[in-house]
Amino acid sequence: MRAHPADNVGVVVQPEGLRAGAEPVDAPRLVEDVPLAHKVSLTPLAAGDPVRRYNEVIGYAAQDLPAGSWVREELLEMPTAPPLDTLERATRPASKLEPLEGYTFEGYRHADGSVGTKNILGLTTTVQCVAPTVAHAVTRIRQELLPRFPNVDDVTALTHSYGCGVAINAPDAPIPIRSIGNLGLNPNFGGAPLVVSLGCEKMQPDRLYPAEALTNGLLPVVGGAPTVLRLQENAGFQATVAAILEFAEKRLAELDRRRRVTCPAADLVVGLQCGGSDALSGITANPAVGFAADLLVRAGATVMFSEVTEVRDAVHLLTPRCATPEIADALIREMRWYDEYLARGGADRSANTSPGNKRGGLANIVEKALGSTAKSGTSALSFVTTHGERAPRRAGLGFAATPASDFVCGTQQLAAGMNLHVFTTGRGTPYGLVLCPVVKVSTNTPLAERWPDLIDLDAGPIATGAKSIEDVGWELFQLMLDVASGRKQTWSDRWRLHNDLAPFNPGPVT
Amino acid sequence: MRAHPADNVGVVVQPEGLRAGAEPVDAPRLVEDVPLAHKVSLTPLAAGDPVRRYNEVIGYAAQDLPAGSWVREELLEMPTAPPLDTLERATRPASKLEPLEGYTFEGYRHADGSVGTKNILGLTTTVQCVAPTVAHAVTRIRQELLPRFPNVDDVTALTHSYGCGVAINAPDAPIPIRSIGNLGLNPNFGGAPLVVSLGCEKMQPDRLYPAEALTNGLLPVVGGAPTVLRLQENAGFQATVAAILEFAEKRLAELDRRRRVTCPAADLVVGLQCGGSDALSGITANPAVGFAADLLVRAGATVMFSEVTEVRDAVHLLTPRCATPEIADALIREMRWYDEYLARGGADRSANTSPGNKRGGLANIVEKALGSTAKSGTSALSFVTTHGERAPRRAGLGFAATPASDFVCGTQQLAAGMNLHVFTTGRGTPYGLVLCPVVKVSTNTPLAERWPDLIDLDAGPIATGAKSIEDVGWELFQLMLDVASGRKQTWSDRWRLHNDLAPFNPGPVT
Repeated sequence: MRAHPADNVGVVVQPEGLRAGAEPVDAPRLVEDVPLAHKVSLTPLAAGDPVRRYNEVIGYAAQDLPAGSWVREELLEMPTAPPLDTLERATRPASKLEPLEGYTFEGYRHADGSVGTKNILGLTTTVQCVAPTVAHAVTRIRQELLPRFPNVDDVTALTHSYGCGVAINAPDAPIPIRSIGNLGLNPNFGGAPLVVSLGCEKMQPDRLYPAEALTNGLLPVVGGAPTVLRLQENAGFQATVAAILEFAEKRLAELDRRRRVTCPAADLVVGLQCGGSDALSGITANPAVGFAADLLVRAGATVMFSEVTEVRDAVHLLTPRCATPEIADALIREMRWYDEYLARGGADRSANTSPGNKRGGLANIVEKALGSTAKSGTSALSFVTTHGERAPRRAGLGFAATPASDFVCGTQQLAAGMNLHVFTTGRGTPYGLVLCPVVKVSTNTPLAERWPDLIDLDAGPIATGAKSIEDVGWELFQLMLDVASGRKQTWSDRWRLHNDLAPFNPGPVT
Repeated sequence: MRAHPADNVGVVVQPEGLRAGAEPVDAPRLVEDVPLAHKVSLTPLAAGDPVRRYNEVIGYAAQDLPAGSWVREELLEMPTAPPLDTLERATRPASKLEPLEGYTFEGYRHADGSVGTKNILGLTTTVQCVAPTVAHAVTRIRQELLPRFPNVDDVTALTHSYGCGVAINAPDAPIPIRSIGNLGLNPNFGGAPLVVSLGCEKMQPDRLYPAEALTNGLLPVVGGAPTVLRLQENAGFQATVAAILEFAEKRLAELDRRRRVTCPAADLVVGLQCGGSDALSGITANPAVGFAADLLVRAGATVMFSEVTEVRDAVHLLTPRCATPEIADALIREMRWYDEYLARGGADRSANTSPGNKRGGLANIVEKALGSTAKSGTSALSFVTTHGERAPRRAGLGFAATPASDFVCGTQQLAAGMNLHVFTTGRGTPYGLVLCPVVKVSTNTPLAERWPDLIDLDAGPIATGAKSIEDVGWELFQLMLDVASGRKQTWSDRWRLHNDLAPFNPGPVT
């Protein structure tokens, strides 16, 4: 399958791969075996010739290659990243897509207008010191209290490894602090957070929620201002657990009175991500997600894509799509910050690709990035948020800067206010989050068949032509509405496969 | 209480503090109220005068202060850190302490000579992707299998946020990789690790345990070479869990046949740490731990202290104590690496102290470091290990480089092979680790009284003279032998307060 008519490589879509001598339609006779998702040269390539996929140069041939060759990672020399100072800015923002009306889901609406897709009691923590105590309390709440409050979906502690033993005044410290504060404000929590603090830690509760945030309506307060409980003020472990349970019981009673109401699809805040990608990601699952992203934008929702290192090499395709030059500038600023962050650690964006990406046919980060950004669909970029910042609601398509690490990206998208997550995977990963549902989409049918109890939707039939990108995009859109309404359960929620939160901390530990 | 006769400040040891006008023994009349653990000027101080505690300069008076003043943080200007290029090296190593014989504990001895204080089934993970699946399996193992194997203490997954979405070839990547590999070899696991891998992650199992490590006896192999289980090779979630349970059942049967045997105290590998320190730490708990450290060294054990940023300002007192110039050079190298690491992140060692430290009377990192290093006792430093490296056994006192963050330090000491942990605290923290027992020692009696179900030993009576440093040191030594033998349970084990592992990753995420 050729991603664009101008490409001089195609990708094998047959699940078993193709053998030497095979004669695929519209392609030369293969001179060697090529596995599923790997690339075949469609024309002869001379050493130094550009290799084109998605109508972009993904590398240069390292040696002469006859047509029908397996274009493996080591036969491609990687191009440099697009320079950041000469990018087109807002030169081709998409014309406004036709509005899409009448699609709704059943959600929990807050006074500030945000909508939850779950009704969860959340316990925010300032420091890992309190985590086992809070975990103990959460287990008891789940066993002893939750059965009495059937309208509450779950109780969870927002634990993390930040909070102390870190350089709390370092230049990058605002990133994890903002992230953890905003995690506690995720719309899937039904009210102002309970903040469990040790007492002596560096990240004091008032670093998470400064006084002005408590009074100007930034916090979606249901039960009053955030409640702070400090372990060092309590008489030991059992007294602390009793205090947490006492708080929880009151809050659970409030949450239990809430009911789902019909909300327009515009109230979805969807985070898009891919993990364990392969070379089919960019022609099956990610374009289908991109089509669904366009549907969401047409319906007036907020849709975020993320993962700076997977956008970096496609940024020249995105800055022209920005709605304004200022949005393009913000996107460029995020790319530059990450370039410098990686350089400080002796790395660059090429550190992104994993062994599984490469076995899945992705030669390098350029090819991966081009496939990854297919998730963004065709609409204009109408906002950019920095790490850990809340995204605007009903704001269309935006870029929420995060690392590409699955858990860090997911955590940061939750901090941005995500209430539904779509995750595409080619190699397969049993990823899940406790704070919001994760819809997992496979890029290839062999994975969906091997993992029937983990994959929620298979985009593999796009590769064989059995379904179109539009077909799968509409299926995904409908599935999102069902999952957001609690009518369908994702596999990760079914098995409670919930990865730990991993707020992004680019600063040093002390 | 004055820490050294040459000091011009003392510390208030009365639990309620002292009021203005109080006339303590051997000290001037107080000109203002001073809380517990805070400093009082014993002589008049002129602006710029050195302020001495532990017979070291902890700062310079920021203004004129009469005798009897409260010497608060803001009245002290911090000295610069000791320069690293002019330190004395191995000029005063301690004379060998008299051997201490006849002290034993009951432990699980391995073929390689190492000894466990617990008998735990450990599941190593290469990446966070597999963590919820393994956690699900651990829950089922604990409920369904463990009751049939009464000699096995526990089952645990070594989960962490490393493994993918990281720059696996960055200069600092060997630190987390080495740490996670060595965690799986902790002597409290009864055999070669089961490694649960996703399949496509960057930290492939052979980065943790390269072929040569499997064959040259570096791994304490009981049941053969490490077993690797790759989720992507299994048919979904339920099949993977079944495979983990099948492995676990076989390994539990092996572990269940093990019995404790009498071992000399020399087989202890003790990690020392402090957290939530106050100004009493350096005159009560830490000196008592230092006395116990000397007992352990005399008994032939390995004792590690750690926490680079809490040693940095006392390094000039430690390099002379090194047994050889090479050991001093290694210590200096660790200080220099951390200086550079912090500088890359826009911080320095002054980022260490927390609000609680300051409320507890510690003016700055200089004062904190002088108190912290009291844990090291009086013996010569006979080894230095770098981050995540295994410490030698029966090797006396050594410095194991780690960050000072409680969880990162504890994790890294476990990677070094720690089988018993001693943790001192003034402000109080319910810290615990699943891999080895943690004995928590309070620096002050009010904390021990407030947290009777968390503090294992109170060193507070040293401040009032009710007990001597030697008394508490011996008590602690005996308690260590009891806990290591499984005869006494620590409070953190009693409540299962086990903090998550936090391997040190100084490199970037991607």
